[in-house]
Amino acid sequence: MIEAAIRAAAVPPFRAMAMSREASALEAAGRRIIHLEVGQPATPLPRLARDAVRRHLDSPLGYTNAGGLHELRRRLADREDVDAGRVIVVAGASAGFTLAFLTLFEPGDRVGVLEPGYPCYRNALIALGMTPVAIPVGPDTRWAPTPAHLPDGLAGLVLASPSNPTGTILSTDALAGVSAACRDRGIVVIADEIYHGIVDGIPAPRVLEVHPDAVVVNSFSKYWSMTGWRVGWIVVPDSLVDTVERLQQNLYICAPHVSQVAALAALDATEELEGHVARYRQNRAIVIDGLAAAGITDLAPADGAFYVYAHVPHLTSAIGIDSLELTGRWLNEIGVAATSGIDFDLGRGHEYVRFSCAGTPSDMAEACELIAGWTP
Amino acid sequence: MIEAAIRAAAVPPFRAMAMSREASALEAAGRRIIHLEVGQPATPLPRLARDAVRRHLDSPLGYTNAGGLHELRRRLADREDVDAGRVIVVAGASAGFTLAFLTLFEPGDRVGVLEPGYPCYRNALIALGMTPVAIPVGPDTRWAPTPAHLPDGLAGLVLASPSNPTGTILSTDALAGVSAACRDRGIVVIADEIYHGIVDGIPAPRVLEVHPDAVVVNSFSKYWSMTGWRVGWIVVPDSLVDTVERLQQNLYICAPHVSQVAALAALDATEELEGHVARYRQNRAIVIDGLAAAGITDLAPADGAFYVYAHVPHLTSAIGIDSLELTGRWLNEIGVAATSGIDFDLGRGHEYVRFSCAGTPSDMAEACELIAGWTP
Repeated sequence: MIEAAIRAAAVPPFRAMAMSREASALEAAGRRIIHLEVGQPATPLPRLARDAVRRHLDSPLGYTNAGGLHELRRRLADREDVDAGRVIVVAGASAGFTLAFLTLFEPGDRVGVLEPGYPCYRNALIALGMTPVAIPVGPDTRWAPTPAHLPDGLAGLVLASPSNPTGTILSTDALAGVSAACRDRGIVVIADEIYHGIVDGIPAPRVLEVHPDAVVVNSFSKYWSMTGWRVGWIVVPDSLVDTVERLQQNLYICAPHVSQVAALAALDATEELEGHVARYRQNRAIVIDGLAAAGITDLAPADGAFYVYAHVPHLTSAIGIDSLELTGRWLNEIGVAATSGIDFDLGRGHEYVRFSCAGTPSDMAEACELIAGWTP
Repeated sequence: MIEAAIRAAAVPPFRAMAMSREASALEAAGRRIIHLEVGQPATPLPRLARDAVRRHLDSPLGYTNAGGLHELRRRLADREDVDAGRVIVVAGASAGFTLAFLTLFEPGDRVGVLEPGYPCYRNALIALGMTPVAIPVGPDTRWAPTPAHLPDGLAGLVLASPSNPTGTILSTDALAGVSAACRDRGIVVIADEIYHGIVDGIPAPRVLEVHPDAVVVNSFSKYWSMTGWRVGWIVVPDSLVDTVERLQQNLYICAPHVSQVAALAALDATEELEGHVARYRQNRAIVIDGLAAAGITDLAPADGAFYVYAHVPHLTSAIGIDSLELTGRWLNEIGVAATSGIDFDLGRGHEYVRFSCAGTPSDMAEACELIAGWTP
């Protein structure tokens, strides 16, 4: 029997995707399932992007240059206020992180990842031979890392604002404080800005405003409603451009051409997309109210993104189960798919659940009613 | 200044893509360039696939399951004569190799790659922390590896048939011979079958027919004319499925959904695609004749794919330049883009050039005439 390599076999699943697969299997068997498990908009590609794809379909959409379509890089560079040469179009934030990690870190390098945080940072680092170091944050610092949180010996730190799973935004002061500490200690900052644009009011501060040497990872998946199109971008310091491009050539060739065409057009779809943001805001309010009615009130401050991260010890530890079992039971017993906090926080996640509020308002309301009616 | 990691900085470029970028830059400046540098069809998505994309564009094309769309896996499993659970849809062969390498090999493992061969095997292995071991093959074994070619201490071997850059097909006997030797020595075989279907007559033997434990990497890029869509598949032994899916979740989430929709429809586009194969055959004949007229006659046997790999010592060593300089001069002086053999063979490639014959017959003929008229 051919066995997997030790390192590969040690990579945990991304449970939100595993939950999504289970939910799909139940749907295929005829069950109605309400999806609050995966962080993706229920809306299609923006209309302008669909039109662009239709216009280009009859042309050969071959490989693009490794860095991406010139015009797309230029438009993104304008948004980021950097030279276009520093922007590399990538196959989603997933590819952006792989390229950033491989470009920046030697095997075994210690890289800080916040808990709770997006699990693929940690899991990708393990898969690629680096050592993720969990940095627990909590309500005491409004879920923000401070210089005091930084352990010794880090080569890098992954930040996310708005954060997945909490939705919490790092203020300019918080971002500047931890960035300055990283700069002083030679720690490279990688900032995940994939939820920028999906905010409840004030825009999320950009890391490049306070730390010009940071590596930015962003994507068209969330604000632009393009998850399945697998297209995003990274911004890297000039000194890394050549290496990133060589890695892209050899590991990806390029981001999907059709998705780059769609992304370029989507940049002009602001009116349609702001409608989505308004709906996420409405959904978040429905979920926060609905969870309160279900007795779930200990929530992280959801400044942005489309998540609500709930502390539910009365539904987990208090009754002798963890959040993985809780979400499994919700799926099977009431047809509500949500994600266990264990995905995001190995230490405390067994008492937390993440709800993704990117679906329809009526689904959000129904899910909360089903949860309120559920008995352990 | 932020510096790239030592391992990343050591990854060579995929020169064919770098040449393509140079060629595009000249085109953008108004020059006419004939493209024989990148291995991609000049044709668009098959018509049936375009229709499928148009039908699906107004639906949300979100994440798929990590393994890919169920129906696509089922259809591919039928082709491969395996259970659907062993087929994982991936973001192009590039992603297939990354997933296979990370799943199978520990850091530092020695993996055999043929020279000449597709450079990204070697470069991806370096990027991911493994050690590629070059195995030179040549005309004496019809460019096939034999058991006698295998060095000691290999953990894996990458095979390709039809091969890039030579187009040479491994016979059933050749494939069975080297596979048996690998099985005996505990060497995992990874077979690149991306050029299957593009053959001059007899189909290329599939590795799974002679070695059921091999890992197969395939893609819709070449036969299905879908390079820029970044979609392919791998077949892995049952014992590796779970690990591959976890790596996919964490490093890619899934292959592009729209490309999976296109791929499923493209599987039925045989009539249109066989027309392309006939054109590649015609192109290959034009290039072989045209190169002969230009005094270039030492060619690898091009049984399939759409490449002609030419030994041109009289245009390189004999006049004191290498094939990188030769192809650079052709690009600038006569507007013909071809790829230096150095991409494919670090040892002997300085005397070789690869021509990709996937364009139009008239372009092929014109390129050969320009080369015939070129004086060093």
